[in-house]
Amino acid sequence: MKPEIMEVDLHRLKVSDPFFGQYQQLVRDVVIPYQWDALNDRIAEAEPSHAIENFRIAAGRQQGEFYGMVFQDSDVAKWLEAVAWSLCQKPDAELEKTADEVIELIAAAQCEDGYLNTYFTAKAPDKRWSNLAECHELYCAGHMIEAGVAFFQATGKRSLLNVVCRFADYIDSVFGKEEHKLHGYPGHPEVELALMRLYEVTQEPRYLNLSRYFVEARGTQPHYYDIEFEKRGGTSHWLIYGAGWMTHDKDYSQAHLPLADQQTAIGHAVRFVYLMTGVAHLARLSQDEEKRQICLRLWKNMAQRQLYITGGIGSQGRGEAFSCDYDLPNDTVYAESCASIGLMMFARRMLEMEADSQYADVMERALYNTVLGGMALDGKHFFYVNPLEVQPNVLKFNHIYDHIKPVRQRWFGCACCPPNIARTLTSIGHYIYTPRPEALYINLYIGNRVTVPVNGGELGLKISGNFPWQERVEISIDSPQPVAHTLALRLPDWCDKPQVLLNGSPAEGEVRKGYLHIRRDWGAGDTLTLTLPMPVRRVYGNPQVRHVAGKVALQRGPLVYCLEEADNGALLHNLSLPKESAFTAIEGKGIFAHNVLIQAQGYRQSPKQQGEQPLWHYDTAPGARQDHTLTFIPWFSWANRGEGEMRIWVDEA
Amino acid sequence: MKPEIMEVDLHRLKVSDPFFGQYQQLVRDVVIPYQWDALNDRIAEAEPSHAIENFRIAAGRQQGEFYGMVFQDSDVAKWLEAVAWSLCQKPDAELEKTADEVIELIAAAQCEDGYLNTYFTAKAPDKRWSNLAECHELYCAGHMIEAGVAFFQATGKRSLLNVVCRFADYIDSVFGKEEHKLHGYPGHPEVELALMRLYEVTQEPRYLNLSRYFVEARGTQPHYYDIEFEKRGGTSHWLIYGAGWMTHDKDYSQAHLPLADQQTAIGHAVRFVYLMTGVAHLARLSQDEEKRQICLRLWKNMAQRQLYITGGIGSQGRGEAFSCDYDLPNDTVYAESCASIGLMMFARRMLEMEADSQYADVMERALYNTVLGGMALDGKHFFYVNPLEVQPNVLKFNHIYDHIKPVRQRWFGCACCPPNIARTLTSIGHYIYTPRPEALYINLYIGNRVTVPVNGGELGLKISGNFPWQERVEISIDSPQPVAHTLALRLPDWCDKPQVLLNGSPAEGEVRKGYLHIRRDWGAGDTLTLTLPMPVRRVYGNPQVRHVAGKVALQRGPLVYCLEEADNGALLHNLSLPKESAFTAIEGKGIFAHNVLIQAQGYRQSPKQQGEQPLWHYDTAPGARQDHTLTFIPWFSWANRGEGEMRIWVDEA
Repeated sequence: MKPEIMEVDLHRLKVSDPFFGQYQQLVRDVVIPYQWDALNDRIAEAEPSHAIENFRIAAGRQQGEFYGMVFQDSDVAKWLEAVAWSLCQKPDAELEKTADEVIELIAAAQCEDGYLNTYFTAKAPDKRWSNLAECHELYCAGHMIEAGVAFFQATGKRSLLNVVCRFADYIDSVFGKEEHKLHGYPGHPEVELALMRLYEVTQEPRYLNLSRYFVEARGTQPHYYDIEFEKRGGTSHWLIYGAGWMTHDKDYSQAHLPLADQQTAIGHAVRFVYLMTGVAHLARLSQDEEKRQICLRLWKNMAQRQLYITGGIGSQGRGEAFSCDYDLPNDTVYAESCASIGLMMFARRMLEMEADSQYADVMERALYNTVLGGMALDGKHFFYVNPLEVQPNVLKFNHIYDHIKPVRQRWFGCACCPPNIARTLTSIGHYIYTPRPEALYINLYIGNRVTVPVNGGELGLKISGNFPWQERVEISIDSPQPVAHTLALRLPDWCDKPQVLLNGSPAEGEVRKGYLHIRRDWGAGDTLTLTLPMPVRRVYGNPQVRHVAGKVALQRGPLVYCLEEADNGALLHNLSLPKESAFTAIEGKGIFAHNVLIQAQGYRQSPKQQGEQPLWHYDTAPGARQDHTLTFIPWFSWANRGEGEMRIWVDEA
Repeated sequence: MKPEIMEVDLHRLKVSDPFFGQYQQLVRDVVIPYQWDALNDRIAEAEPSHAIENFRIAAGRQQGEFYGMVFQDSDVAKWLEAVAWSLCQKPDAELEKTADEVIELIAAAQCEDGYLNTYFTAKAPDKRWSNLAECHELYCAGHMIEAGVAFFQATGKRSLLNVVCRFADYIDSVFGKEEHKLHGYPGHPEVELALMRLYEVTQEPRYLNLSRYFVEARGTQPHYYDIEFEKRGGTSHWLIYGAGWMTHDKDYSQAHLPLADQQTAIGHAVRFVYLMTGVAHLARLSQDEEKRQICLRLWKNMAQRQLYITGGIGSQGRGEAFSCDYDLPNDTVYAESCASIGLMMFARRMLEMEADSQYADVMERALYNTVLGGMALDGKHFFYVNPLEVQPNVLKFNHIYDHIKPVRQRWFGCACCPPNIARTLTSIGHYIYTPRPEALYINLYIGNRVTVPVNGGELGLKISGNFPWQERVEISIDSPQPVAHTLALRLPDWCDKPQVLLNGSPAEGEVRKGYLHIRRDWGAGDTLTLTLPMPVRRVYGNPQVRHVAGKVALQRGPLVYCLEEADNGALLHNLSLPKESAFTAIEGKGIFAHNVLIQAQGYRQSPKQQGEQPLWHYDTAPGARQDHTLTFIPWFSWANRGEGEMRIWVDEA
């Protein structure tokens, strides 16, 4: 195995398709300014953030007390990363100036020794590194490092990169195997993947080694969380679920065993995918076969047994966590937006290591369903939790739904998701392509234009189409000089009979691990026309999954569909879809303009009698059912018309 | 409305049918001795009780510290009540001697002023009455009062009655409207119903008035829970879910509003039905129309919108509580055994007030399903929580199942249920009949022999049959002298075409509110032959209940049936029952000997492919299904063959 991924500025590609272009514009015009207001506490009716003020306080520029989560800094870091990628897409002098000022403030908040964390600097300076299990210091460090890397890659400015290198150097002086160092590692993984990114831009081996140290120390005995717990007198930062649980329930943070001994995706879902993103990156760059096997094994368990049809992960609210194989409840699910973002990151690293389309299939599923669904169409409301079925009027009465919101919120006390969505949408180029020496892998069919260096030359190409609504995608080459290279086109798992034409004739190539490899001297004017038929497809659950037995879901292209009360009336559970019903794809209106909606003839179970019914009735058959036209909308756009019922899985009559 | 119920020693009737007789024998021979051992901490592998030892400590006869729940005393009281009724059924000198000794010990633990509670006497004597919201003092008082009443009714001995009258007198001196008294009321209702029972045997109006005081003070402003909370400095006895919640979440204990303003069954289910049992008793005996309306309204909400097919109540684990209308999940349900016992008590008081068979229908449903199901067939294992669907291998991984056990337990740290089941089964006579001046109402068709005073004479009758397995029940009269009276036979809700013969000819009578009223001069030799056809019936859920949409349950007579893994293999959710399938009633074997099991031809959804399957597949139809013979067992007897899957509601193919 060789570290074969090529360094290409994929964040510089220009997104041009109608669907994703609109999203990127929304992020630029609405999401980034909105979130900047949120970080500065200027959004009425939103939970306060105080994140920028915390930096001012830590920098000594303002009096006051730290406020917010112990990881509040990371919201600023993620916002900066979103800004960085956005500036790549479209320069914006005013925005860049704001970012520069924020970076200057961050630098001012950095301690002499390189340490950087407003909670500990402003509120608990003597508690530094005393509670890695619970206090997110290395998590915040990781996000700041990511921001520093991104800002450098996007703008060429080293301002934040210098800050985070100093910070990383300091961390490296504190943590490690050496006797005089702390033998700890983060409760919330993130610094591992960040150090790998920092290594990629700096080529400083200490960063890779530190990442490896954190990965390999994790879960070893004697257990560091217990040691630090005792050392600090058994205090806990978090009291929810009772004191000390975050230290004691070590599988919550994937620290119950060394990774080499772990067999299943477990614990807090975001922690899991962030950790594995770092491990996969490390495995590739250090050519570590054992770590590669860990990645393959844990990916397989997650993707084959613990993944929702929506690309969501984390089946339970408590601990925002995985539960166990095939336990995929639709209504009490967690499926945090950040977890699906982390899943995309993990998938991307797996693609860089393996070039197997199964990773891209999952990445696409997460992107077009849970990640997009995490943000409202207005760019100003967000889901933290992404259920597959909601009955709004029950949520506040049954505690199993305590974590479920029926509509997106303006902001959160724990606001990890909104800026995470923003930075993911603006950096989408990293996910569209995997450039390797032997081929340029095309993972996602998002319209864009990019130039990739190939063997001293340049391969310029443009993807156009109207994905995910239309099945035809065109890939045209505009290299000034012909270049010999392989284009590897992903054949999506949801597509039965993809057709590929090269300049009008059937393209010849070899299918390997889900990619059609076409090698040739690509020159200006060459055009690949890809047709990915998108009939509405019935999707059935694995028979191990009890929550979807007897039910069917609809998918068209990568999009999972759902029923909403707004189109179908209340009590969606009484609707059923006959096996033989045909589907009509129709164009939506209003907020669904240009979107494809689906209709089908189905049934509505009607009440047995008029008036108050008994809770059960004895009969030879249930009440009569009436014909009912079922209207399905893309699930990512649910809850954009106010509060109402929603469900993805429908009884098949 | 008149307080028309007659005082009849219904606990003295002799149960004789094969089914319930066996249960009563089990209680006598196994359950009562077993629970006595448990109360004395002599059961290996069971959670310790310490309940008897607490009394020894409080009585000053032993050194040591109180151990257990703040309401540990109530387990002893319920055990004593079970013993009292058992002695009625079958004298047992040794058992009576043990009970006498326990009562002597209880009397020794009573304080000079009449106060009786081992927790406060032994552990926190200065905290008496300082935390009614959380600390169960009046709850324990109520159970001890019930035991005193029962022991007196059963044996004629006043030993415990005297103790509890002293205690009740003391409570009456402490609580009430008068300015010098505390204006509090219990966090856990129970004393209200107990005082009504004490009033019935003593005819002391102070007890009825005190019960009324507690009912009417409940939920008024300024709120007593807040007052005492502040007075004791905001301390909390329970820290689960965070300090103070039991004080602040007032709907948990039905204290958020005065009862007159409450519209729905709410909060902790056991508290609700215990409270309503007292209110219904009070409403009848004080001819209080407003309280009667409260009972009718809250019964209706509970029975029509929040009751499981199993007679279980309490849809959620948190707070062991109701959730909201039509929210009846099968797998995360609570349905505490004690709640269904309390439901039987509430139903019995409603019957005494209203003589409407709807109350008896619910009572029978709770008895034959959840209450019986709460105890293992061996009499030594108990369910606290009674799910309608279990997948054992998931329980420890997903926190929504934290409260669910896949098999019955030997004992509980909170052991309210086991002795509650015992006292209910031994006092079953109270539920079989409702004797009123105008008629003897027969609610349950449990074989028994009883003599009821009627107009100066005596009506002796015997019910025989093999209910609930066989449809024929015989009621024969053996009064020495003919007596003119009305027998009112309940026509069960589950029975379409009941037939009643009087001495071989169709009986004539009038059906009123679900009872067939037959008036005549009943003389020795008169026989009513009741045939209650018990075909296997398909039961369908109210269309409001999303958890059972598209599903069917089976019921035969009063028994709800279920599928178990032991008979049907794993992954029960893949089984379906076609609409047209016929049913075969078969006789069970082994632990099901003499029981009626049900078989039907159905299907099993088979895996689409061999080997590891993807989590979902796209296809025009789900995988093939194979013929499969479904075997259903009575739900009350599930989990008597070790751990395995179980479900009541099955997909209707």
